[in-house]
Amino acid sequence: MSVSEIRTVAVVGTGTIGASWASLFLAKGLTVRCYDPSPDAEKHSRAFVERAWSALAQLAPVPPLDHAQARLSHHPSVETAVDAADFVQENTPELLDLKRKVLTEIEAGLRPDVVIASSTSGLMPSTMQETMARPERFLVGHPFNPPHLLPLVEVVGGRHTSAQCVTTAMEFYGLLGKRAIHIRKEINGHVANRLQAALWREAVFLAAENVASVADIDAAVASGPGLRWALMGPHLTLHLAGGEGGIEHFVDHLGPAFTAWWAELGTPTLDPSTRDLLVAGISQGVGSQSVAQLAEDRDKALIKLLRAIKPLS
Amino acid sequence: MSVSEIRTVAVVGTGTIGASWASLFLAKGLTVRCYDPSPDAEKHSRAFVERAWSALAQLAPVPPLDHAQARLSHHPSVETAVDAADFVQENTPELLDLKRKVLTEIEAGLRPDVVIASSTSGLMPSTMQETMARPERFLVGHPFNPPHLLPLVEVVGGRHTSAQCVTTAMEFYGLLGKRAIHIRKEINGHVANRLQAALWREAVFLAAENVASVADIDAAVASGPGLRWALMGPHLTLHLAGGEGGIEHFVDHLGPAFTAWWAELGTPTLDPSTRDLLVAGISQGVGSQSVAQLAEDRDKALIKLLRAIKPLS
Repeated sequence: MSVSEIRTVAVVGTGTIGASWASLFLAKGLTVRCYDPSPDAEKHSRAFVERAWSALAQLAPVPPLDHAQARLSHHPSVETAVDAADFVQENTPELLDLKRKVLTEIEAGLRPDVVIASSTSGLMPSTMQETMARPERFLVGHPFNPPHLLPLVEVVGGRHTSAQCVTTAMEFYGLLGKRAIHIRKEINGHVANRLQAALWREAVFLAAENVASVADIDAAVASGPGLRWALMGPHLTLHLAGGEGGIEHFVDHLGPAFTAWWAELGTPTLDPSTRDLLVAGISQGVGSQSVAQLAEDRDKALIKLLRAIKPLS
Repeated sequence: MSVSEIRTVAVVGTGTIGASWASLFLAKGLTVRCYDPSPDAEKHSRAFVERAWSALAQLAPVPPLDHAQARLSHHPSVETAVDAADFVQENTPELLDLKRKVLTEIEAGLRPDVVIASSTSGLMPSTMQETMARPERFLVGHPFNPPHLLPLVEVVGGRHTSAQCVTTAMEFYGLLGKRAIHIRKEINGHVANRLQAALWREAVFLAAENVASVADIDAAVASGPGLRWALMGPHLTLHLAGGEGGIEHFVDHLGPAFTAWWAELGTPTLDPSTRDLLVAGISQGVGSQSVAQLAEDRDKALIKLLRAIKPLS
């Protein structure tokens, strides 16, 4: 089937990631069939969709909320949730044995040609698909939290994943307005989390070395290069830094300076004193603002930002 | 003198960075006295100010352009440019001997209590101030390009810089709407360029390892964590990723995963094949768009972004 014919998505596991995916699928007019073992799962999903709706409406036209809620259903088993699905997004806890068991249950109820994507951030698709009957239709479709707002999805096939499966998932996410990228090799952290880890490592080093306060290190990103990174990635940023000669000129003329910095970048450890320093530094910066309040403010700002700069490149 | 009494700024060196600083100072109502040895310097500065004006006007109310141009002057020597200055921003080429010579010329014409800030990205203030008569009033005030748009300024004192000098510079930049951060220790790349180098290193590694295309690695930033980094730095980002327990919970529960990724981050070299791969990757992504066109588009998007999300934290 063509991706444009996908009408029904099964969401297996409706915690924060699953409920966010469900909200996005509903906003795009799809029917969403859920399974989650928690007794409060349906209540939680519907409340999440309701909260997410105004954000989604600011980014693109959405159907009325009551129509969307009517297209959302919870089912008593994985098999019954997936039996009418044209695409499956799996979001269960990051435990290999559990994921493998759930994949077996998904396969038991699902049409044989339907793609199964896992939101896993930590497990490798080759490992997960080893015990599957039809491993060729399985891959990782790793979103960035929250999936209903952030465009990125990392698509990673395993050893047995078919090229068609990768193409279908990339196209499907693209139709939903996501920016799907193809990870060609299985590697811990995929791409975005590795990049995030690389940035944070140096940020932790600079804090631990008392080069600047935690708040000032954060400001160095958000008031400087972070503003560019919302518009373009590190390679294109440096292509522009190269002036008329672009990345070629940049590598030839500023490459040596960057290489020298690379050699001096820190390798901190998250020992107790570094942990205490980060905790104290954050606390000093945020004062009495709760994480919930900060996250709400961030998501509001994120929507403004997405509205201001889309279409994203 | 109090920073609010600063009325006249000398801009020594009016290349891209100096002319951008001059535009910002003029937009904030200051008088700007320039020196640059190039015969076209004044023509270039005035053209730069004219181009920058509409961008500046979108970010904050600005005086009429002709009033601003009337407050801009070029002078035949460093001494005459700085003689009426209440603050000096130096932006000459990154050559130590040249910078030291210029600092001597600045001191020859300048009132003894006035702060001299250097825009240098690569030289250390302790080294630069060694040959100065009054090294205590010298520091680095390193902007992020373009200074008239990006809020970040890294303030770095040297061995002989007075605490008062640091305070004055921080307050002055703050009054101009910049986000000045205090770098407490001299270190190559200060903070922002080290963070940029850390991110790019892993991006180069992932490209060189063929984990994803250059364009997809860039998209992994701009469609994912980069959108958050325009709003908050890496520490606060992970504080929010920790949920209710914040950074404390994050370090305790996800610290081990990040530490494991840290151990696996790449250490690429900018050898000829990596260089070619980056050049080909960029070329594939940008097609026929020139660097000038991309930079213009980026600056337009940057203004939209700054308007959408300010006040920046």
